[in-house]
Amino acid sequence: MQALVFDRGRARVRDVRRPVARPGHALIRVTLSGICNTDLELRRGYHGFSGIPGHEFVGVVEGPEGSKLVGRRVVGEINLACGSCDWCRRGLGRHCPRRTVLGIRGHPGAHAEYLTLPVNNIYIVPADVADEEAVFVEPLAAACEILDQVAVAPGMRAAVLGPGKLGRLAAQVLAHAGADVTLLGRRSRARNRSFDLVVEATGSPAGMPRAIELVRPRGTIVWKSTHHAPARFDAAPLVVNEVTVVGSRCGRFEPALELLASRKVALKPLLSAEFPLSKAVAALREAGKAGVRKVLLRPGA
Amino acid sequence: MQALVFDRGRARVRDVRRPVARPGHALIRVTLSGICNTDLELRRGYHGFSGIPGHEFVGVVEGPEGSKLVGRRVVGEINLACGSCDWCRRGLGRHCPRRTVLGIRGHPGAHAEYLTLPVNNIYIVPADVADEEAVFVEPLAAACEILDQVAVAPGMRAAVLGPGKLGRLAAQVLAHAGADVTLLGRRSRARNRSFDLVVEATGSPAGMPRAIELVRPRGTIVWKSTHHAPARFDAAPLVVNEVTVVGSRCGRFEPALELLASRKVALKPLLSAEFPLSKAVAALREAGKAGVRKVLLRPGA
Repeated sequence: MQALVFDRGRARVRDVRRPVARPGHALIRVTLSGICNTDLELRRGYHGFSGIPGHEFVGVVEGPEGSKLVGRRVVGEINLACGSCDWCRRGLGRHCPRRTVLGIRGHPGAHAEYLTLPVNNIYIVPADVADEEAVFVEPLAAACEILDQVAVAPGMRAAVLGPGKLGRLAAQVLAHAGADVTLLGRRSRARNRSFDLVVEATGSPAGMPRAIELVRPRGTIVWKSTHHAPARFDAAPLVVNEVTVVGSRCGRFEPALELLASRKVALKPLLSAEFPLSKAVAALREAGKAGVRKVLLRPGA
Repeated sequence: MQALVFDRGRARVRDVRRPVARPGHALIRVTLSGICNTDLELRRGYHGFSGIPGHEFVGVVEGPEGSKLVGRRVVGEINLACGSCDWCRRGLGRHCPRRTVLGIRGHPGAHAEYLTLPVNNIYIVPADVADEEAVFVEPLAAACEILDQVAVAPGMRAAVLGPGKLGRLAAQVLAHAGADVTLLGRRSRARNRSFDLVVEATGSPAGMPRAIELVRPRGTIVWKSTHHAPARFDAAPLVVNEVTVVGSRCGRFEPALELLASRKVALKPLLSAEFPLSKAVAALREAGKAGVRKVLLRPGA
């Protein structure tokens, strides 16, 4: 099958062997996959990654034969948990220390014609959600994770730093929860120390110092960015003002699928371009340009 | 009166005018003051400080005449709040944006024969608490603040990084709350990702990266250190493991005074030396040495 492969900083599309579903796993034919900034970071060497990247997708189950999932349109939780450790027993398989992660760590990813995932990771896409919407479920779940971590009260003053894909999803999720949301780009001005909640989704080490300026004493910063470069900032205001910083990553798929089905989130403005998988290297280039939002890949196109 | 004065990196003891208590303030004759690491940071230029440092003290009220506080042995909350802003009305004067802070910002400190504080800031010391114990109430309140910010459950695995004064107080407060506490020095070894709670009280930029190694996924780091140098660390594990970082500074005096009165905290091991105020410069030198704990100053001695 055709797949995008990263190898020591190089990206190319080539023919690789189609994956075989292990027991308990399903074989999924990918309909669409989305390029995430993490993919661009992985190519730069984050996590020492090599292999097939991609963790945002929608597809159709093709196997195992006889499974009632065959033919269903699905999305999938990207963390493959061991299922037996303390974390997994507490329902927190997303933090299982033995987990592999689709297209990020130890499990071939979604920028390919086929992928496999444990049946337990799979969610069926509601009929009235289009493929072009369903492909957003993973980043939308990551945005919804904020609501699982922070008590967002109606009228709460929230700033989202970084008007990229995740930032725009987070802003919509927070607004939907009743917060008074301001989306801030690199040059936007806003009053310092005036926000109850600041979501740092810039993808850059410059985000955190700005978030510390914006948050009020005793306020909360949700830290979404992972980047290869170390964070560097004056920590004194954070300590003196008793700010809480909450690291935030993946989220549950259920609330994200509900939001998609309810049409409460505008996804069209987040879509920049679609490329055939065969042109994935050009697609990566496009996705890395300033101002470009979600770039999708379509296998077999 | 005699006072320790910092002026552009220089420290010396000299004669200054005795402060006059404004309306609503009391004049306090200092019996003992404690040297905090913050004093050493202030001397190095933290906050661009100049003036009389010192925010840990016990003393006796001498004025205003006729006040029922006169003659009482007291300690005092170090934040002088405006009393009328949103923060103050919510009982969070410690975060009042217009506050001055005893010996730290805009209000002459405790390394002197006399100081003034608003009557509202003053707490009477229980009779059976010695001066040498009462002088610890401010750092003990800062340690108790952790219990106001984090739900410490019995059996919780807690690590305290930095076996200095604040670290040792925090360790005792956490143990008293039922946590299973490990106090870790710079060379101590402990299993990574194994602590529910890590208190970073090293006073050094090296503390945070170590705290991130030690805390478990979804665990909490309480960040106590303020230092002049910027923080610098790889933030990815903090985000990926969804760690919560809680900035933590001053605390309420009531629980600290209760703890002192109950004799549940061992303070003697924290006391390194006492100097007369006239030898404050030598005392600062002593306090800055590795392994030295609390150094006290006694005015008039």
